[in-house]
Amino acid sequence: MRLSRFFLPLLKENPAEAQIVSHRLMLRTGMIRQEAAGIYAWLPLGLRVLKKIEKIVEEEMVRAGAIQLLMPTLQLADLWRESGRYEDYGQEMLRIKDRHEREMLYGPTNEEMVTEIFRGTVRSYKDLPLNLFHIQWKFRDEQRPRFGVMRGREFLMKDAYSFDVDEAAARKSYNRMFAAYLNLFSRMGLKAVPMRADTGPIGGDLSHEFIILADTGESAVFCHKDLVDMPAPGPDVDWDNLEGVFEARTSLYAATEEMHDEAAFAQVPADKQLSARGIEVGHIFYFGEKYSKPMKAVVNGPDGEITVHMGSYGVGVSRLLGAIIEASHDEAGIIWPESVAPFDVAIVNLRQGDEACDAACEKAYKALTAAGRDVLYHDTDERAGAKFAAMDLIGIPVQLIIGPKGLADGNVEIKHRATGERHTAAFDDVLNQLTKA
Amino acid sequence: MRLSRFFLPLLKENPAEAQIVSHRLMLRTGMIRQEAAGIYAWLPLGLRVLKKIEKIVEEEMVRAGAIQLLMPTLQLADLWRESGRYEDYGQEMLRIKDRHEREMLYGPTNEEMVTEIFRGTVRSYKDLPLNLFHIQWKFRDEQRPRFGVMRGREFLMKDAYSFDVDEAAARKSYNRMFAAYLNLFSRMGLKAVPMRADTGPIGGDLSHEFIILADTGESAVFCHKDLVDMPAPGPDVDWDNLEGVFEARTSLYAATEEMHDEAAFAQVPADKQLSARGIEVGHIFYFGEKYSKPMKAVVNGPDGEITVHMGSYGVGVSRLLGAIIEASHDEAGIIWPESVAPFDVAIVNLRQGDEACDAACEKAYKALTAAGRDVLYHDTDERAGAKFAAMDLIGIPVQLIIGPKGLADGNVEIKHRATGERHTAAFDDVLNQLTKA
Repeated sequence: MRLSRFFLPLLKENPAEAQIVSHRLMLRTGMIRQEAAGIYAWLPLGLRVLKKIEKIVEEEMVRAGAIQLLMPTLQLADLWRESGRYEDYGQEMLRIKDRHEREMLYGPTNEEMVTEIFRGTVRSYKDLPLNLFHIQWKFRDEQRPRFGVMRGREFLMKDAYSFDVDEAAARKSYNRMFAAYLNLFSRMGLKAVPMRADTGPIGGDLSHEFIILADTGESAVFCHKDLVDMPAPGPDVDWDNLEGVFEARTSLYAATEEMHDEAAFAQVPADKQLSARGIEVGHIFYFGEKYSKPMKAVVNGPDGEITVHMGSYGVGVSRLLGAIIEASHDEAGIIWPESVAPFDVAIVNLRQGDEACDAACEKAYKALTAAGRDVLYHDTDERAGAKFAAMDLIGIPVQLIIGPKGLADGNVEIKHRATGERHTAAFDDVLNQLTKA
Repeated sequence: MRLSRFFLPLLKENPAEAQIVSHRLMLRTGMIRQEAAGIYAWLPLGLRVLKKIEKIVEEEMVRAGAIQLLMPTLQLADLWRESGRYEDYGQEMLRIKDRHEREMLYGPTNEEMVTEIFRGTVRSYKDLPLNLFHIQWKFRDEQRPRFGVMRGREFLMKDAYSFDVDEAAARKSYNRMFAAYLNLFSRMGLKAVPMRADTGPIGGDLSHEFIILADTGESAVFCHKDLVDMPAPGPDVDWDNLEGVFEARTSLYAATEEMHDEAAFAQVPADKQLSARGIEVGHIFYFGEKYSKPMKAVVNGPDGEITVHMGSYGVGVSRLLGAIIEASHDEAGIIWPESVAPFDVAIVNLRQGDEACDAACEKAYKALTAAGRDVLYHDTDERAGAKFAAMDLIGIPVQLIIGPKGLADGNVEIKHRATGERHTAAFDDVLNQLTKA
């Protein structure tokens, strides 16, 4: 993408309304624009990151055997009356009446609807296990929306729902999502720690939140230090035998504030006790028959009807942008992990209009684009300092800096955003290296 | 994808509520499931097609120079009061009050919001032309939703918005979208004819609908026959000089019912007069200052402030599934054009459990998947006839049929859904051919 043909409305000043760094940086870099309290438009830079995160989540869900569908944003109130949650949900549920005065709502989550789909289509225990997921906009009418996309009202969530014949099978499904979550957060450059968590309005008795540690985290968390750097199981883990993956993490202490047990935490060796702030980026639940029983989601088993055991598994897709920035930024701006960066490489032309510089930049732009890299070519006539500041601010991992002095010797400069490291090298070598990366 | 691990709830019977063939087939093939009047869940088979269509639309918008963002589904009523459309829009607009009694609405379209984004971020005429598009769920509270996704309430639309310094520039932007639409519909195997159309609640005085001819079309259309088979301009057209593309099509008679002029139509040579039924799949508008003036969307020009000239350009993404099926089906089911088919190839194992058949199917499945093809392997123990019927019904373009008799001679069978043509060939040759396709 040539910057001159892109739409990147950077703000010069820090927006006064932003209380946390991710909100401030997302506004300053023109990633989002507030359209109402807690409701944002995703401008092109923000949408690029959102789509990359969405794709990682989708790929890891599919790898773990989940099947993608897409449920609508609006739901019938009567569906929620079947589970008993319509009255329970309170003011966070956005209730709507259509032109025929039918009671509807903007879905905050989809347990009821997916249970309805299941009971209407699946007949036999032979069709289980089944895990259905979707990535769709949700709405929670927060009393006081704040922190940008971290606590918005309209937000993008991945929610998966598992259906099994009994609790043992359901726990296997739970473990698959547990492992998939470790992998997907790891792919985004995040260290997410699973912690015992309260089940809240979803219900059930087994639940983990996946927490990123960040000073600006919304809540206090407590865990064994070894959990933070424990590597993700990876894509080649044995997906049918995940007890070990689950045990390795749940045998060490880790709990959110609501579930915290001082006495148990005190048993952790003192040098391994970590008490920190955390951001929730995922939440998984096993809740057995909580929805399937009242909603009569049954299948024919070998010996009669079976009420299915269910779990649900959420990832805050839009929230993740904020969380990643909270975990990865410096004074100059955002530092995107490569896997979710809006562009892989920024080409900075130090002297736009200079024949040699323009030609070299064009050559690099074409070669890198042809090699499948996402390239942002800063091709305006701004001065070099402003170009560097803008590319640092929006956090592109690699800057390819092309200027007249270096080019005279056949050289260009490479700068790595994360380390600040810069080095000069032969233009052709750099192109070779970047097209292969 | 192995069918045994997919979620494909086919219906045995034709659903009574479906009045048109696309609705009937989408329900029977388990592509969609109605969750409320005019509100559908997209089951995995339907979502696969929806995503392919979305991707084509996105690629062709980007090729034409449009930049993608994503606006939220909910909007503030006050924004629509600025343009004067809040009261005008009538009962088709779903009006919502949040917990603080703020008046909101579920966006039926986004002219107001994108104008607000523009005026808040763009300052100079040097930043024009600008074309911003998004693909987002919309809601129109139809009095009588019907025909499945063809006239639903919650629907997926691509809407693009162009901003230009004057009418001449705006017409260039209009022509780019005109050409992009011809290309994108053509990529989906559709013959879409642009026709002069009424501007309706969007406004303006220049507007074309893109119409697919189908006996089940919702409205009468009238055009010169030559328009139907006129080839799309293709990706390599000169995007800066599209007057010829526009002229070639608009100089021939083509109008929807509302704009039809009997006298003008009578001037078309009798053997070229085509009067038919049509389905609208796209609608483009140039409306000048209709929104920019009341909403004060201005830029600094060389000689003072300029009120920008705007156009908007819609494609009914979810509606296109219905339209394509209306245009492409037979007694046995759907016939997907290759570019939007949910799977490229279906592998039909004629004797599941037979060692040689299973091994050959696995080999084909792995080879085709590795080659990047979307493969559905029908790996259940249903009888051959049922497998053929299911694959015909869901309309996969190519069936690779593997049975014990053929395999004994090293042969398999290939069936093309569109023509019904079948032929036997050596297994290895077929694999070679399909992996290269």
